[in-house]
Amino acid sequence: MPETVAMKFGGTSVAGPEDIKRAARRIVAAREAGNRVVAVLSARGKTTDDLVRQAHEVSERPLAREMDMLLSTGERISCALCAMAISDMGHEAISLTGSQAGIVTDSSHTKARILDVRADRIREALGQEKIVLVAGFQGVSGESRDVTTLGRGGSDTTAVALAAALDASVCEIYTDVAGVFSADPRIVPDARKLSVVSFEEMLEMASSGAKVLQLRSVEYARNHAVRIHCRSSFEDGAGTLVLGEEETMERPLVTAVTHSTEEARVTLVGVRDEPGVAGQIFGSLAAASVNVDMIIQNEPISTGRRADMSFTVGSGDLQTAVEVIEGIGVSESVSTDERIGKVSIVGAGMRSHPGVAAKVFQTLGERQINIEMISTSPIKISCVIGSDYVADAVRALHRAFDLGADAIQREEPTGAAHRPRVGI
Amino acid sequence: MPETVAMKFGGTSVAGPEDIKRAARRIVAAREAGNRVVAVLSARGKTTDDLVRQAHEVSERPLAREMDMLLSTGERISCALCAMAISDMGHEAISLTGSQAGIVTDSSHTKARILDVRADRIREALGQEKIVLVAGFQGVSGESRDVTTLGRGGSDTTAVALAAALDASVCEIYTDVAGVFSADPRIVPDARKLSVVSFEEMLEMASSGAKVLQLRSVEYARNHAVRIHCRSSFEDGAGTLVLGEEETMERPLVTAVTHSTEEARVTLVGVRDEPGVAGQIFGSLAAASVNVDMIIQNEPISTGRRADMSFTVGSGDLQTAVEVIEGIGVSESVSTDERIGKVSIVGAGMRSHPGVAAKVFQTLGERQINIEMISTSPIKISCVIGSDYVADAVRALHRAFDLGADAIQREEPTGAAHRPRVGI
Repeated sequence: MPETVAMKFGGTSVAGPEDIKRAARRIVAAREAGNRVVAVLSARGKTTDDLVRQAHEVSERPLAREMDMLLSTGERISCALCAMAISDMGHEAISLTGSQAGIVTDSSHTKARILDVRADRIREALGQEKIVLVAGFQGVSGESRDVTTLGRGGSDTTAVALAAALDASVCEIYTDVAGVFSADPRIVPDARKLSVVSFEEMLEMASSGAKVLQLRSVEYARNHAVRIHCRSSFEDGAGTLVLGEEETMERPLVTAVTHSTEEARVTLVGVRDEPGVAGQIFGSLAAASVNVDMIIQNEPISTGRRADMSFTVGSGDLQTAVEVIEGIGVSESVSTDERIGKVSIVGAGMRSHPGVAAKVFQTLGERQINIEMISTSPIKISCVIGSDYVADAVRALHRAFDLGADAIQREEPTGAAHRPRVGI
Repeated sequence: MPETVAMKFGGTSVAGPEDIKRAARRIVAAREAGNRVVAVLSARGKTTDDLVRQAHEVSERPLAREMDMLLSTGERISCALCAMAISDMGHEAISLTGSQAGIVTDSSHTKARILDVRADRIREALGQEKIVLVAGFQGVSGESRDVTTLGRGGSDTTAVALAAALDASVCEIYTDVAGVFSADPRIVPDARKLSVVSFEEMLEMASSGAKVLQLRSVEYARNHAVRIHCRSSFEDGAGTLVLGEEETMERPLVTAVTHSTEEARVTLVGVRDEPGVAGQIFGSLAAASVNVDMIIQNEPISTGRRADMSFTVGSGDLQTAVEVIEGIGVSESVSTDERIGKVSIVGAGMRSHPGVAAKVFQTLGERQINIEMISTSPIKISCVIGSDYVADAVRALHRAFDLGADAIQREEPTGAAHRPRVGI
């Protein structure tokens, strides 16, 4: 029984005709290496943006159900075109919609969750030696039989879900970057491409600013033990493997420095200090689909019975958050700050090594960078700082923890066992 | 039980955002008049051309199955957008793909035939007071469960098929012309908009050059007794009703003059005069999907055993036809003529009025127009003439049979019973 390989190509990887053909050649190469291949494609380049624009041209409040019907066409176009290109290369290929591929979801239009993968039709086609192309980002509601979409980054999740259902040896995610780096190479020129990261590390990195993989797809991969290989569409060579901690040979103390400047802070001055207020605040924000990141509450300084509270949200949610908070009227005033950023260090080894937090604070302190908020997990430390200091902080922490390419000989924790087995 | 109305909007009727909104307003008006409404939409403006271009950018021989997957997205986009626009107008609407709408076809990709319409889902939505929008031109193969397309003009056929399945009182076809005319108004300025034509007349007109309705959809309408109303998207007022002869009060002698200049003639000189040759010629042409229109064979003039044979095909099929004929090698030589055209008169009343053909030949003779080929049916006479003479011939015949708007008082054969009942 040959191995099954799942592949996923993002929007920039299928943008132009040459990109489609390049993706087709990669798919054909994996097939010719003896694998069964199922490939998930995103919509081409700016297609989704263009469809969204068309919706807003005809409607002030586009229906969610119809947005899904509309947007799901983009990935279908990519898949049909890629199947044609593969056929020209002498291989049999068929494209399937999310529905045809058996991606069954709930009925939450524009942000559906996958409930089941009924991959019989894919298995049948793979059994007939065909290459199968699946339209990413979409499924079909098991209840209403309507087309649904999975929301932002949904194609990654489609690929991981299919890899799990088909028991694929690997899920290769092709993008326009070469893999996962120890920091953003645009900020840290000697940032190192990581050969391996664990699911847990990748989850922390994705939630703290790394954009190479979508958070949800990593969660799905962890829950179903799907090995992910992040690679470049445009270059050859191995990228970064994302896999279970039990598969990594040794944990580095710190794996990467991540950052985000798309953050904003909301401060409530003079919050009524009584039971249930915090529940009311964050319950209302959740009901408005605002994702809150960090929360800080100061004790009442004097004898007064009122406290100050701050929290951070994505910049895009700021306006909604302020409207919600003003609506419930539990504080004397509300102020906002968009000139903040977040810098984080992530590493599975932190669990067993105390002292990492101290080194972070010391490093930022030496650079005269004021830390405004702190949050930690067993394998992550995040600091909110002024947005102007983010790049400097990333470079300083990357250097302080010896994460650069110069350190590769010494830090490289993984052996040949972690080299990807296919598609190199 | 309210009446059900099927509507169909062509590509120019949904091209820009304002066009989509105009179509949405027409649909809403029909709904507010108390009808159940199902509307079939074509792809917007140049969308299909653009998708075909994308296919040829990535493949030299695009797979038919994948062309169907690709092209079917255009109509889905139109329907999703129109559903959004209708929702903004305060009505509930849902869009359905051909597959969701239950349009079951055979597996002939790019030219599938409708085998069945399983309209349960449409009926259910109509029963919930929803307006239903159906992506035209497409269905799903009952056998392979693949997306299929119905070929040229397929959206008209979708609309008529749904009208039949839903027992609609009328199928309104909206295009960029006001209805069916007694001749092409660009050639004959006083051409008259016909208030009624019979299916049989419409079939003859469609096959002899009238472009307002696709031949296949008229056949389907006749076979299922679906009343068609051809109307303009851009103007109000009644268009042309197409219905059964038994519903027309009286038959005019001649209803319309049609013409086509997209014809070409192939002449085989010195065809072997032996049994089976004609079968071989036209069998081979049919196998190559070349539609042959008229055929003439001259008897051997002298004592020789070889004849000449001519036939006409659509200009687009000429090259294929010549290759086929040269391939089977049954004649001494093959010549072609692309400078031909066809002018036809159509009228159900011809059946009972002899002398129409004589008047046609006399009219053309008076204009010094040489008739090169003739073909007739009980309700049609077609003449192949030089393409340069077509416009003159159309005008002369239109005048000779008194078809102009001046004649409307006298010729109008239908009473108020034929006024469309809805959507005016």
